[in-house]
Amino acid sequence: MRGPVIGSLGELLVEFICDGLDGHHLRAGSYTGPFPSGAPGIFIDQAARVGARAVFAGAVGDDAFGVVLRDRLVASGVSRAMIEVVPGVPTGSAFVSYNSDGSRDFVFNIARSAASHFPAGAAAVAKFLAAGVEVLHISGSTLGDPEMRSRALEICRSLKAADVAISVDPNIRTELMNDAAYLAVVRELIGMADFVLPSDADADLLFDGGFTDWAPGLIDAGARVVALKRGAAGAIAMDGGGRIVDLPGHAVPVVDPTGAGDCFCATLVTQLAHGQDMAVALRHANAAGALAVGRLGPMEGNSDLATITTFLERMA
Amino acid sequence: MRGPVIGSLGELLVEFICDGLDGHHLRAGSYTGPFPSGAPGIFIDQAARVGARAVFAGAVGDDAFGVVLRDRLVASGVSRAMIEVVPGVPTGSAFVSYNSDGSRDFVFNIARSAASHFPAGAAAVAKFLAAGVEVLHISGSTLGDPEMRSRALEICRSLKAADVAISVDPNIRTELMNDAAYLAVVRELIGMADFVLPSDADADLLFDGGFTDWAPGLIDAGARVVALKRGAAGAIAMDGGGRIVDLPGHAVPVVDPTGAGDCFCATLVTQLAHGQDMAVALRHANAAGALAVGRLGPMEGNSDLATITTFLERMA
Repeated sequence: MRGPVIGSLGELLVEFICDGLDGHHLRAGSYTGPFPSGAPGIFIDQAARVGARAVFAGAVGDDAFGVVLRDRLVASGVSRAMIEVVPGVPTGSAFVSYNSDGSRDFVFNIARSAASHFPAGAAAVAKFLAAGVEVLHISGSTLGDPEMRSRALEICRSLKAADVAISVDPNIRTELMNDAAYLAVVRELIGMADFVLPSDADADLLFDGGFTDWAPGLIDAGARVVALKRGAAGAIAMDGGGRIVDLPGHAVPVVDPTGAGDCFCATLVTQLAHGQDMAVALRHANAAGALAVGRLGPMEGNSDLATITTFLERMA
Repeated sequence: MRGPVIGSLGELLVEFICDGLDGHHLRAGSYTGPFPSGAPGIFIDQAARVGARAVFAGAVGDDAFGVVLRDRLVASGVSRAMIEVVPGVPTGSAFVSYNSDGSRDFVFNIARSAASHFPAGAAAVAKFLAAGVEVLHISGSTLGDPEMRSRALEICRSLKAADVAISVDPNIRTELMNDAAYLAVVRELIGMADFVLPSDADADLLFDGGFTDWAPGLIDAGARVVALKRGAAGAIAMDGGGRIVDLPGHAVPVVDPTGAGDCFCATLVTQLAHGQDMAVALRHANAAGALAVGRLGPMEGNSDLATITTFLERMA
């Protein structure tokens, strides 16, 4: 049985992770990279690994870092049809440095990199439809730059109008919470989404009260599944029938939390689009997130269904 | 006695150096950085260290890497008057990976970074003149991008017309040797230069024969000093009187050759502008280059005159 066609779009980045704590990128230290990254890139890699026919609208520069990204996504089974190479523009990048209080310092190059040149407009919509896309996933990380936001929103509107399901990870950038245009687009996308997948931090910023206070309103507005990612505390979800499944987190050592949320979203959405029961899909997604934090690198902890199943048997 | 006012302009970059060989930036590995870098940045840092009143027309992004660059140059004594911060544009970057055959693989972000936004035009010329600049140094590394090339050339022409001495390190980018516009600017700058400071590789690409074949022509055309940087083999120079000084290299362990040529140029030009005898200036520059290769990081091996003098006494 062939997997569902899952699409995503947005920034492809290479990531460098500072080995030490509290350096704030302000002094020479040791970094590990280039790791393939970018929230929607992590998502689509994991979607392919759990059986989706994965298609991604993205762009890289004509440099070694672009090769890292393309080779990795293609090796995982993502279609290369909508991944473009932009000559003379550097591949997008992110530098992350962890602090002892758990916070992270980033240096990004997204808007001025090839990452912002993802295929868009009517041509991209036509390619997604020709690929038979069933769900398009979007991460709020793609919405920070006004140009990228506008092009992403246009694709989502067009695909929604063509009956493609929309999946939204708000992935709120707190420094943009005072930007009304940004928040308006986040809320519009949530309003059209079939799958709404916030983190605890997102929910605190966007909604009032606890999960059972705000999730029913999203279901009433048309969402098929709403899932709250609670990090180490697990995940809770509600489906269109009002059924709630609440799963505790797995007690696992955390090597690198970056990307775990995107991995969770991809596992859940791919399974749901494949017709999997919501409770089973959530269990798999919750396990995929736990596996993701155990490896250094934003998508190095992505895993296939066999690995997820083995992990769940081991934890049982 | 106050040092001469030495100026430069162009790309400020942070550099990350791959710790292993032959990775070609294609797989996750260990890198050390961010080191302050950029050929003209290395030059101006060293000029300040050997006593110049140093002024630099450059720009960085409003990110942690920009702080690394500004703090470093200012700590070395470079004026902050012409170092700008460009909001929303990333600081320039360079990734270098060494190969076992001695070659290097780079991934650059220069033209699309803040590095390309160095102050230019009549305002920059006026600031250089107000600072009392006596020599303006330019590296061929700044001339790859057509926009940067054009703005750099305009400043050089204006300052030359105002009787400021021009110093040129051709620093030829071999991938541009078929670009007639690039080569024409390199040759125009050499033609107006008071100090012509090629490497062996530059000389092979630009001139016919050995040093004594082509250096006299440059002196006849108006250069005050022509110096050939020969890496581990030392340096040879000719002054306006036709005197030639030929120095062997110092036998030192090479940790990181990047930046040694810029360090050589800065030491030589600052000393010459200070009225130092050419033979002594060349000896100091040759020692500064040897000191530069002993430290990891493009400008981490820069040194002051006391260190250079101590090194020469030790090597005597």
